[in-house]
Amino acid sequence: MELYTFFRSSASYRLRIALALKGLEYRSHFVSLPKMEHRDAAYLKINPQGLVPALVDDQGRAFIQSMATIEYLDETHPEPPLLPKDPVARWYVRAVSQIIGCDIHPLNNVRVLKFLKGPFGIDAARVDREWYGHWIAEGFRDLEGFLTQQGRHGRFCLGDQPTMADVCLVPQVFNAERFNCDISGFPLVRRLYAACLELPAVQAAHPARQGDAF
Amino acid sequence: MELYTFFRSSASYRLRIALALKGLEYRSHFVSLPKMEHRDAAYLKINPQGLVPALVDDQGRAFIQSMATIEYLDETHPEPPLLPKDPVARWYVRAVSQIIGCDIHPLNNVRVLKFLKGPFGIDAARVDREWYGHWIAEGFRDLEGFLTQQGRHGRFCLGDQPTMADVCLVPQVFNAERFNCDISGFPLVRRLYAACLELPAVQAAHPARQGDAF
Repeated sequence: MELYTFFRSSASYRLRIALALKGLEYRSHFVSLPKMEHRDAAYLKINPQGLVPALVDDQGRAFIQSMATIEYLDETHPEPPLLPKDPVARWYVRAVSQIIGCDIHPLNNVRVLKFLKGPFGIDAARVDREWYGHWIAEGFRDLEGFLTQQGRHGRFCLGDQPTMADVCLVPQVFNAERFNCDISGFPLVRRLYAACLELPAVQAAHPARQGDAF
Repeated sequence: MELYTFFRSSASYRLRIALALKGLEYRSHFVSLPKMEHRDAAYLKINPQGLVPALVDDQGRAFIQSMATIEYLDETHPEPPLLPKDPVARWYVRAVSQIIGCDIHPLNNVRVLKFLKGPFGIDAARVDREWYGHWIAEGFRDLEGFLTQQGRHGRFCLGDQPTMADVCLVPQVFNAERFNCDISGFPLVRRLYAACLELPAVQAAHPARQGDAF
């Protein structure tokens, strides 16, 4: 398989973790977001959305949207599972993933920050601090609240095995720290993140360890 | 089942369509977003995220996150299916859903518009026109491009039976029209939307037909 990835992209980071947890080999193609390589005509043929990641299989089929691709990998390479078997537990894993993937991450995506700083003319420091920080604070409050309400966590988001929920949690916490957001008020999220960081698969997927890191 | 819903909420609209397509009965509890009822302590106990919808089953379990809840309904009430059986087709349905649910809808959510108009002090008309319109234009371009690239559509997003992809598409197009966005350049999206509107289940779920509509 071939992974079109950018080291700092959260969605690429998710897919790298999922591939590593499943022990699936792939070749990396680096797509530089700062150099706008995701808008190159050749890449848009692979992913018409012009976002990373895209995973291309041996038959040349390109898979986009990280959570959808992780579910596909889980259905076609079931071991180790990234979703449980019980329908309520599956809902929970997807709900945690979507709290992050729908309600936190998209608001702080680089294309959104660029739009606010560019066409909307908002001071860059203000965007990085007030906009980014607001959605992290609100989103992490909701995430911590949901995880606590459900009480299904153990060492990881669901019991003691990593799932898609942890795969989504890791890049989100990494990004919050990169933007110097105060996440001290979310002890459960921080504990789950720390447990994930001990996994070799998560370590191998870290942005700093990618060939395009700078 | 009990559905906590607001007539104009896209995510509530999705769940109403899914429930109607499956012929599942439910009792509606109206949660007024303008009156901030989603932040009431009683509602936060049901959904710590403080968003709509929430679906409470006969055992009192509350399900949140609309796409995760739709998958749960599909796994526990399989007929008619809202996801196909083939893994690649499942990926496609989830990818279409997530292009909408992750990359279009969250940016134009009412809480985001309110934050821009309030703390960020951006002129309300400018937010409604330039911000809302920008993400619709960009998102619909990507959605039309992906649907076209994949070529899996028939009468609906995947062949001739409605799936979760259509369930997500309908509220997004409804909202784009409500904000007077120009979607004339997306003929495939418009044709799929028109086909969905002919379904009695989609008609029953329409915002204007809900008990809390104003």
